[in-house]
Amino acid sequence: MSAKGALVEGMNGGDMGLDEAAQKPHDRLGEWLAADMEAVNAMIRARMASEHAPRIPEVTAHLVEAGGKRLRPMLTLAAARLCGYDGPFHIHLAATVEFIHTATLLHDDVVDESTQRRGRPTANLLWDNKSSVLVGDYLFARSFQLMTETGSLRVMEILSNASATIAEGEVLQLTAAQDLATTESIYLQVVRGKTAALFSAATEVGGVIAGASAEQVQALYTYGDALGIAFQIADDLLDYGGTSAAIGKNVGDDFRERKLTLPVIKAVAQADAAELAFWERTIAKGRQEDGDLEQALAIMARHGAMEAARDDALAWAAKARAAIDTLPDHPLRGMLSDLAAYVVARIN
Amino acid sequence: MSAKGALVEGMNGGDMGLDEAAQKPHDRLGEWLAADMEAVNAMIRARMASEHAPRIPEVTAHLVEAGGKRLRPMLTLAAARLCGYDGPFHIHLAATVEFIHTATLLHDDVVDESTQRRGRPTANLLWDNKSSVLVGDYLFARSFQLMTETGSLRVMEILSNASATIAEGEVLQLTAAQDLATTESIYLQVVRGKTAALFSAATEVGGVIAGASAEQVQALYTYGDALGIAFQIADDLLDYGGTSAAIGKNVGDDFRERKLTLPVIKAVAQADAAELAFWERTIAKGRQEDGDLEQALAIMARHGAMEAARDDALAWAAKARAAIDTLPDHPLRGMLSDLAAYVVARIN
Repeated sequence: MSAKGALVEGMNGGDMGLDEAAQKPHDRLGEWLAADMEAVNAMIRARMASEHAPRIPEVTAHLVEAGGKRLRPMLTLAAARLCGYDGPFHIHLAATVEFIHTATLLHDDVVDESTQRRGRPTANLLWDNKSSVLVGDYLFARSFQLMTETGSLRVMEILSNASATIAEGEVLQLTAAQDLATTESIYLQVVRGKTAALFSAATEVGGVIAGASAEQVQALYTYGDALGIAFQIADDLLDYGGTSAAIGKNVGDDFRERKLTLPVIKAVAQADAAELAFWERTIAKGRQEDGDLEQALAIMARHGAMEAARDDALAWAAKARAAIDTLPDHPLRGMLSDLAAYVVARIN
Repeated sequence: MSAKGALVEGMNGGDMGLDEAAQKPHDRLGEWLAADMEAVNAMIRARMASEHAPRIPEVTAHLVEAGGKRLRPMLTLAAARLCGYDGPFHIHLAATVEFIHTATLLHDDVVDESTQRRGRPTANLLWDNKSSVLVGDYLFARSFQLMTETGSLRVMEILSNASATIAEGEVLQLTAAQDLATTESIYLQVVRGKTAALFSAATEVGGVIAGASAEQVQALYTYGDALGIAFQIADDLLDYGGTSAAIGKNVGDDFRERKLTLPVIKAVAQADAAELAFWERTIAKGRQEDGDLEQALAIMARHGAMEAARDDALAWAAKARAAIDTLPDHPLRGMLSDLAAYVVARIN
């Protein structure tokens, strides 16, 4: 599992052999939602200001203006517009979601001791860990101020629950990362924390603020959840099979960093004694040698672990697309559906 | 300015020559509010649980059960009861306030690279910085879940504003700490972030949940704000004049850590060229030699800086006491008033 930023970058990848319309659904979303996104960006700039502590906008701007794809705020805007929303608060919620995301990136980089994010030095490297921790806290607090302004208790409930799931998933990953007993069910909890919880909250609050029916809100939640999981599994697979250019990192990084991603978990579940010893040495103990990556790939191929993980990703993407079938017929619905197809097109 | 935990510990200090009743007002508050505090502790235990990530309750329990005085939740309970509240939500809010406090302690220890808190090794030392950052995030999220359950938008506004002020104050302190241009006004902003913002939010939300009048809520805010500022200035003074036992740390720690606390700020403001060179060398550049602490004390004495800071602390404590004069006549009002007297009794 790679850092979340890389995932979003990965979506801007090369020619997948699809036609232009299907190729970059997030760009089409960006065009359709351009006016809203401009308002979101203005709100982000206004709310990241600090009268007293100029370090805060410096650190935030470094990350916010580094060219992330703003996928999460677009999900909120798309969900709200798709459900016919015409008020002002989808902008607050989109900015809220981006602030939560930015805060988690700042803290993740401290936790992972990262030095690069979106192709630039990380804030913890440019300033220090202290600034990353405290500016992250500031953005969390700002995100709660923003969501409070919507006046919707349901929205606050969804986003505070998502924040707890995110933090819980990250703590779980700390302890589960190199534990060969990690099951697919724990993997899903970690993935929900890393990616899917904020995706599903982003789409769900868009529906809630629009006053959508309980069924529609549930469909938006399911879409965001399944999209996030498909997204993360695809990223795990690309780490073992993609080209550097397509994924923004080197093949085998997860293996070298001893991350128990879905293909490995599937291979471990079927391992014989010799294979288990291999995973024990390379992942649990981290004693890696030349040729181990190739050996890992061979073991995974033997058990069809990559294919099984790919099938899972395709199933989650299909679930995402099916969920929003019940939503109103709308160009945005088509783009969201294409987006779900796109995240797995890279691995299919 | 010392870490917040030490302040609360300091309040449990030795015999101040006051009679028993005035001596430990927070103990009297604790007795009066015993049933409520039991409910708060039960809620804290329930909400710090994590089904999936046992690291979370481990880290939280280490801090929560280390014997902090629970001053902040008691402020919320006292404010609510004083205003006649008889519902269930003051418990949620008291737990919220303690979770926010605990989260900031976890993050502070990472930022300050602390190794001791409340006389025990810090969580970042026992586990690691990663766990402290992520468990802190989890507790922040939990605190927002708890406050959302009260259904009061005004409460959420107050507590999210306080959270932003806390983080902003901490970032400000990062950059202002060793800057001799730091004014008393910047000092106050930092102190509000470190201490007073959560004190004032704690008392204010108690009044709000009780449905107190706007004037009463304002009085509770003013009390908490002034109490927190008096508290912090007293702590600054004790650092230059208290005994180790009374303050839980060594005299001169702030000086050695090059912290620009109120007595120093006042002395710098009146410094001649030679004194300015002294402060420049010892605080701004951190090149300290034997005898510098004594020299610092002599310079502060020459300008009456300690006395002036003490007068400020007394004035803030008096402001706190005056503010709640308008509240209903109630034993809790007396205890809150005594508490404000107590925090400055140590320096008077």
